[in-house]
Amino acid sequence: MAATRLAKDCSVLTIAGSDCSGGAGIQADLKTFAAHGCYGASVLTALTAQNTTGVKDVYPIPPSFVSDQIRCVLDDVETHAIKTGMLCNAEISAEVAKVLAEYKGKGKLPPFVCDPVCVSTSGHTLLKEDALGVLFDQLFALATVITPNKSETELLLKTSGSPMEISTLDDMLQAAKKLSSFSSTSVLVKGGHLTSSLQEVKDLVAKNPGLEIIKQNILDENMEILLVAFESEMTSRELVVDILFEHDGRTTVFARPRIHSTSTHGTGCTLASAIACGLAQGIPLKDAIANASLYTHIGILTAQPIGRGHGPLNHLHSTNLATVAQRTKTNPYPFTYFLIQNTREAWKEYVEHDFVKQLGRGVLAKERFVHFIKQDYHYLKYYARAYGLLAAKSSSFTAIASATQTIINIINEIGTHKAFCETFGVTEQELEHTAESTATAAYGGYLINIGLQGDEAKLIMALMACLLGYGEVGLWLKKEANQPNTWVTLGGNPYKKWIEDYSGEHYQGAVRIGIESVEKLIVADHPSPARLKEWQEVWLRCTQLEKGFWDMAMSLAN
Amino acid sequence: MAATRLAKDCSVLTIAGSDCSGGAGIQADLKTFAAHGCYGASVLTALTAQNTTGVKDVYPIPPSFVSDQIRCVLDDVETHAIKTGMLCNAEISAEVAKVLAEYKGKGKLPPFVCDPVCVSTSGHTLLKEDALGVLFDQLFALATVITPNKSETELLLKTSGSPMEISTLDDMLQAAKKLSSFSSTSVLVKGGHLTSSLQEVKDLVAKNPGLEIIKQNILDENMEILLVAFESEMTSRELVVDILFEHDGRTTVFARPRIHSTSTHGTGCTLASAIACGLAQGIPLKDAIANASLYTHIGILTAQPIGRGHGPLNHLHSTNLATVAQRTKTNPYPFTYFLIQNTREAWKEYVEHDFVKQLGRGVLAKERFVHFIKQDYHYLKYYARAYGLLAAKSSSFTAIASATQTIINIINEIGTHKAFCETFGVTEQELEHTAESTATAAYGGYLINIGLQGDEAKLIMALMACLLGYGEVGLWLKKEANQPNTWVTLGGNPYKKWIEDYSGEHYQGAVRIGIESVEKLIVADHPSPARLKEWQEVWLRCTQLEKGFWDMAMSLAN
Repeated sequence: MAATRLAKDCSVLTIAGSDCSGGAGIQADLKTFAAHGCYGASVLTALTAQNTTGVKDVYPIPPSFVSDQIRCVLDDVETHAIKTGMLCNAEISAEVAKVLAEYKGKGKLPPFVCDPVCVSTSGHTLLKEDALGVLFDQLFALATVITPNKSETELLLKTSGSPMEISTLDDMLQAAKKLSSFSSTSVLVKGGHLTSSLQEVKDLVAKNPGLEIIKQNILDENMEILLVAFESEMTSRELVVDILFEHDGRTTVFARPRIHSTSTHGTGCTLASAIACGLAQGIPLKDAIANASLYTHIGILTAQPIGRGHGPLNHLHSTNLATVAQRTKTNPYPFTYFLIQNTREAWKEYVEHDFVKQLGRGVLAKERFVHFIKQDYHYLKYYARAYGLLAAKSSSFTAIASATQTIINIINEIGTHKAFCETFGVTEQELEHTAESTATAAYGGYLINIGLQGDEAKLIMALMACLLGYGEVGLWLKKEANQPNTWVTLGGNPYKKWIEDYSGEHYQGAVRIGIESVEKLIVADHPSPARLKEWQEVWLRCTQLEKGFWDMAMSLAN
Repeated sequence: MAATRLAKDCSVLTIAGSDCSGGAGIQADLKTFAAHGCYGASVLTALTAQNTTGVKDVYPIPPSFVSDQIRCVLDDVETHAIKTGMLCNAEISAEVAKVLAEYKGKGKLPPFVCDPVCVSTSGHTLLKEDALGVLFDQLFALATVITPNKSETELLLKTSGSPMEISTLDDMLQAAKKLSSFSSTSVLVKGGHLTSSLQEVKDLVAKNPGLEIIKQNILDENMEILLVAFESEMTSRELVVDILFEHDGRTTVFARPRIHSTSTHGTGCTLASAIACGLAQGIPLKDAIANASLYTHIGILTAQPIGRGHGPLNHLHSTNLATVAQRTKTNPYPFTYFLIQNTREAWKEYVEHDFVKQLGRGVLAKERFVHFIKQDYHYLKYYARAYGLLAAKSSSFTAIASATQTIINIINEIGTHKAFCETFGVTEQELEHTAESTATAAYGGYLINIGLQGDEAKLIMALMACLLGYGEVGLWLKKEANQPNTWVTLGGNPYKKWIEDYSGEHYQGAVRIGIESVEKLIVADHPSPARLKEWQEVWLRCTQLEKGFWDMAMSLAN
């Protein structure tokens, strides 16, 4: 199932009718493209006034306006797959075939899924009978695959002068072979209107060696624990079976449980569009169909009731809402921005703390600063140990090395810290013998707790408030010091070295590495809402604990 | 920003033109609805043959077919918001206004965003001038908000006999006030075609007390670390400003950095649709606009080049592809199914191991079984300790209790284990003094490693292969025993009790609880592809270690 192109780099074009109620037609197609992460374009062949109860009216678009639209798309948007649906009448069918043949002639026709839509789920004719010949003569041979259902297959075989009724899997296989031969392309005959059993599938395989079966959402051997644990349609004996006969003769049977649901409006459009998304990505036909069948199957399974009749599938089951904006060149730090922006008040109380302001003015009482640096000595031990836990939780040498380098930096800074303390008359012995304050214990304990409880990512979150906050304080004080008539005093400020350290290149380099590691987390492992909430809580808690640390210094609390 | 309705329960209808190239019109609208998780319906007023280089041709739909479509949707699909875009001409505008007024009369008009599209990004007229009067006289008063850009605002004010040119924020505010008074609704004047600065915004606020500013993606105070870390458009002085004048007089200014990009095709459609999604969810207008602005802004920021002209936005930035199917009533265990299905071979080698088959036949050499139960005794100590780690990693009393109960169960089973061993002549002392085999050390060590390295979820993954696999073996042997001419022997089988234990209600109850906890993980915290891969690897590794454990028993390896 290896794709050669990422979904986000694929454009897929549908040429089909509109279903204003949104469940079928180009609406279902565009939703399916979006649900696969592909860019969608859509050319309209006809409009319908319809809803889940049926088609009220059809309004065909002039053929020349259909081809104008096709040219507009194919001449400008690099297109990686095309899907056709309702073509309404012979004139539109011929026009579409003519334009696609033209692009084929220029070597510009991408993989093409032709869904020969003839009749709506509700029974309304969507293709005039005289168009069937056009499909055969002009359109099918351009297609990578055609995807008729049972009645469309019967109608097409009748048109080709080889009528047959389809009531068994064997009939389906024979019909697929005939249709492939008449249409010169691969054929997927869809069995949604037949009911089969696993035994019938096995019999078919026994009779046709080389035939491959792909079973989907079927509880199979070695799944006794799931079989007994619930009674559901996964265990049902009623299967829906589609048969793919590829033009080179390979045959594949796709089997899945039948779902008893009225949410089947637009199933055919959805399947064909999902196959087109697979082909656009370079996935081989058989695998593209397997993926598309499962996507459509789950779309029916997870549908919510909409409208009073046959409701639409749930097209969006394959996507989740993102929680953090994408990282881009012009917005490289969306997650750090998000964290700060969403905890603005707590962050401001931390980085613009009175302690910081008094320190900037050089008026902070020495005893408060001394209380702070003594406790900081204890805190740094916790902080280093937490990076030890981070190393233990890392899964790459790069990550282990990065955590370890931080510990080495902290150990080195402890040397500077001691020297700095001495300038304030605090000896190493005094540092070691200072009792740990409640604020220090709370913060240190929290780091170790997170380090034991959570994974690498959560621990990184816990370590960031300290790293980034001191960086912010350093830069802020430095910036303010450079303003005219500044309130910050550097000359004669006993804390000048402290300000210079945190605003200096060495520390700021570490801040940038920290921000990078936070942003990389999000790209590598986009969090669910629950996980993001957890991370935000950790960040907020540490921000508050940082503020508490400076509160402690100001009140000289133990 | 509290929503009163979940996005997935919202249907939004767009009434607009088609852009076959997919960047604007109902295509942009449907993509925006999908990107917000809302169901989308779309009524076509006109088709365009266009691409990123411009509009080649316009094909209006007969007014009566437009109203037929609207009725089809509103009579069948419960609709939570409506958005109108290109209405093409006076006749279509009047028809849309008439039908919407009719539903308003019946109390059935949901919140309605009217985007008075007049001219395309590329300069093509999309609304004939004679339609402007219709908008004023019949449509605007039905709307919750209208969203003209600078030139549309100028055109509308000219039509209303009060012409003015807009070149400053102050002009925008005055224009919004006038237009709101003339149109009897709230007005969002979009300033995408003007460039403003933060100073201008501040001046506007100074002159207009009570005006609220919402700044988005603007690096602000207390973000020095982000300001220095990169030079980008987030730090640019050029802002784009929109002004909302609500009909009750409240005024809000939305400011964000200008992005220099050609990917702006369909910006207006996208914004109006995103606002409609917010209103559908019951989000207040101001917050719905703030969300929609940011969504559109990031859509431009993350756009990939498509076409040769003004390319479309990236509508899908707000979604990620889901990794595991949704849990439904008829498919309650999609994740367990996924795990087993995707490791079929390893799983089968484990649960259908020769050890199991010989045990089922009752022919397993006693020394092999004894080797197994001796090592199992050691293994269960690791297993219990791993649940201890799970308790330590849990964040709710329920989870702590569940992990602890499992430990108690294991301790109790150790009693049974000893008694069982005695029937095979193995004493407790012998159990304690048996040297740990390499297979046991590998498996036990792996559990403890995962327990220390990862979070709760990853550890649960590691604990499942044992729990579920023995459950599978028990059920399989029991099921096979009940087949006619079965190969499984229960009568006289020395291992009958073992089979009965694992197939019995007590153990199977634990299996069901385990499956539930795995499935709940996915619902509560849908994994990213990276996380899912990690989980799958843990599951696979443990499956292999389980097989290795039985290999060890068969080969009597130490």
